[in-house]
Amino acid sequence: MPKSFTPSLDNLVRSALRGNRRAIAKLMSLVENDPQARFKILSSTYWKRNKACIIGITGPPGCGKSTLIAQLAKRYRDTGHTVGIVAVDPSSQLTGGALLGDRIRMGELASDPKIFIRSMATRGHFGGIARATEDVAHLLDASGVEFVIVETAGAGQSDIDVKHFVHTTVVVTAPGLGDEIQALKAGIMEIGDIFVVNKADIESADRTAQEILAMIMMSEPVDGWRPRVIKAVATTGNGVAGLAEAINQHSQFLKEHTKQAQQGRHFRDDVLAAAKRYFEDVILAQLASTHELEELTRKVEDRELDPYSAARLLVDGSSYRTKGRKRR
Amino acid sequence: MPKSFTPSLDNLVRSALRGNRRAIAKLMSLVENDPQARFKILSSTYWKRNKACIIGITGPPGCGKSTLIAQLAKRYRDTGHTVGIVAVDPSSQLTGGALLGDRIRMGELASDPKIFIRSMATRGHFGGIARATEDVAHLLDASGVEFVIVETAGAGQSDIDVKHFVHTTVVVTAPGLGDEIQALKAGIMEIGDIFVVNKADIESADRTAQEILAMIMMSEPVDGWRPRVIKAVATTGNGVAGLAEAINQHSQFLKEHTKQAQQGRHFRDDVLAAAKRYFEDVILAQLASTHELEELTRKVEDRELDPYSAARLLVDGSSYRTKGRKRR
Repeated sequence: MPKSFTPSLDNLVRSALRGNRRAIAKLMSLVENDPQARFKILSSTYWKRNKACIIGITGPPGCGKSTLIAQLAKRYRDTGHTVGIVAVDPSSQLTGGALLGDRIRMGELASDPKIFIRSMATRGHFGGIARATEDVAHLLDASGVEFVIVETAGAGQSDIDVKHFVHTTVVVTAPGLGDEIQALKAGIMEIGDIFVVNKADIESADRTAQEILAMIMMSEPVDGWRPRVIKAVATTGNGVAGLAEAINQHSQFLKEHTKQAQQGRHFRDDVLAAAKRYFEDVILAQLASTHELEELTRKVEDRELDPYSAARLLVDGSSYRTKGRKRR
Repeated sequence: MPKSFTPSLDNLVRSALRGNRRAIAKLMSLVENDPQARFKILSSTYWKRNKACIIGITGPPGCGKSTLIAQLAKRYRDTGHTVGIVAVDPSSQLTGGALLGDRIRMGELASDPKIFIRSMATRGHFGGIARATEDVAHLLDASGVEFVIVETAGAGQSDIDVKHFVHTTVVVTAPGLGDEIQALKAGIMEIGDIFVVNKADIESADRTAQEILAMIMMSEPVDGWRPRVIKAVATTGNGVAGLAEAINQHSQFLKEHTKQAQQGRHFRDDVLAAAKRYFEDVILAQLASTHELEELTRKVEDRELDPYSAARLLVDGSSYRTKGRKRR
């Protein structure tokens, strides 16, 4: 437990870990916007993680993704679970406040105290939006949220690649969006654990589902999981139970197949990754406000130094670095 | 100039900056695979950069991108320029060694001593393939290569996002690839400075070009540049002159519109970015081989520490850090 915690941050974390809604909201803001606080929050919540099922849901605009997510969240709530929704998609109808069809409206979800909804700002993330999203998802996990749904646009926008920390990836498509299958072929296909053909009440939906199925059959299941294809009508809730069931099956599959991997958990890699975070979030923020940086920048402007040599001097020569250290 | 250069690396850099082909090839390998060498190479070549025109060319498999690049490279060579090609696309026909139609074959390009071709391995990059690609492009730039072409697949694969260091982005499409326009709408549209409708001898090419044009007309030019749309037949070379001209126009446009920005160059940001690189490429590599890391990892395994607290102790407490430093 870091000693340098300010009491208020410490208290916030404790409240959040007990599931306090306001504390969780406040910590999500800090994780998004304050690198030094973020590092402390990640540190003190680390051992509480790894209980949630983290679900990534991606698909092009117009496929009905937000409505599907609302229905899925509602289903989890109806079966007594807590749900978090993190929207990275700037066009998300969930966080954009738009109406979600006749059955579910945003208000219904937002007023539920067991649903945590967060829209990630698409700018100004120190370290990238994918990382900020991961941190928020982990915070929700640590806070006892059982299902964390991450909504992304999933179309060539690099910063929203969340595959590496999401457990189950659901790719949503719909007939009549142009030849969606092409987009699937072009890369999204590989990342889907479950495919949902939404708007399945449209006639051509069967063909879309069959084409996806054919592509799945042609490709070798890389890690032993054969992706599922599910037809749904998000506006009525049809198919949502099947989706929840498929997510559950995939979770079970992961549990069985990662047992061995879990034995030799990569704590060494975790420490090195955290060291990188520590440098970026804490040390670099401190170096950025030193007069050494201003002096070295002037030397770069005068072409006495290149930025790399200046950086070496900044990091090695700062008050954080030993004077008697070995020369490299 | 870093003092710790091994003579051979120092010599390699000197040879590369004189345009020595073998030295450049060797340095490209080091930049890709050896983080510590990479940092030194970036440092000592920094002031030689910023002369090349760096062109990103992206598009889905089957659009004829590799053939177009081969033709563009040939054109630059015919007008007396040096060319570098960095392929990040694993399906690239340029580096995959496939034949490129009747007019140009890979062999012709590869045997030209003024063309530098590099295929980026898609795995094992310490810090990501986008960064390794950027470093290789900068190295080619510093080595006096005038046009650096970066070929990417451009389809939802996050790691190949090269937009931030490329000057001009060319998006290639072709009629009959399914409804490509949908993919353009879904994100690629925004990144194109120039659009090429390849295979323009197919009847429906005009419609594709007009659809792209209509989308351009509907959107406000963000930075004052109105994207160009060019029809081409890469296999015959038709339209390649127009593409080269459009790239040239965009370069001129950038020069005129970034003059002011260049005045207050962001050397301060460059130093901070380099500090991050220094930590990741040099310090972290050294920390990774310390016994402190092994000890701290054991404490994490025993749950005495979380990985973040361990990382803080590793970085702060290592022999690289002062003992008398201020507590944070």
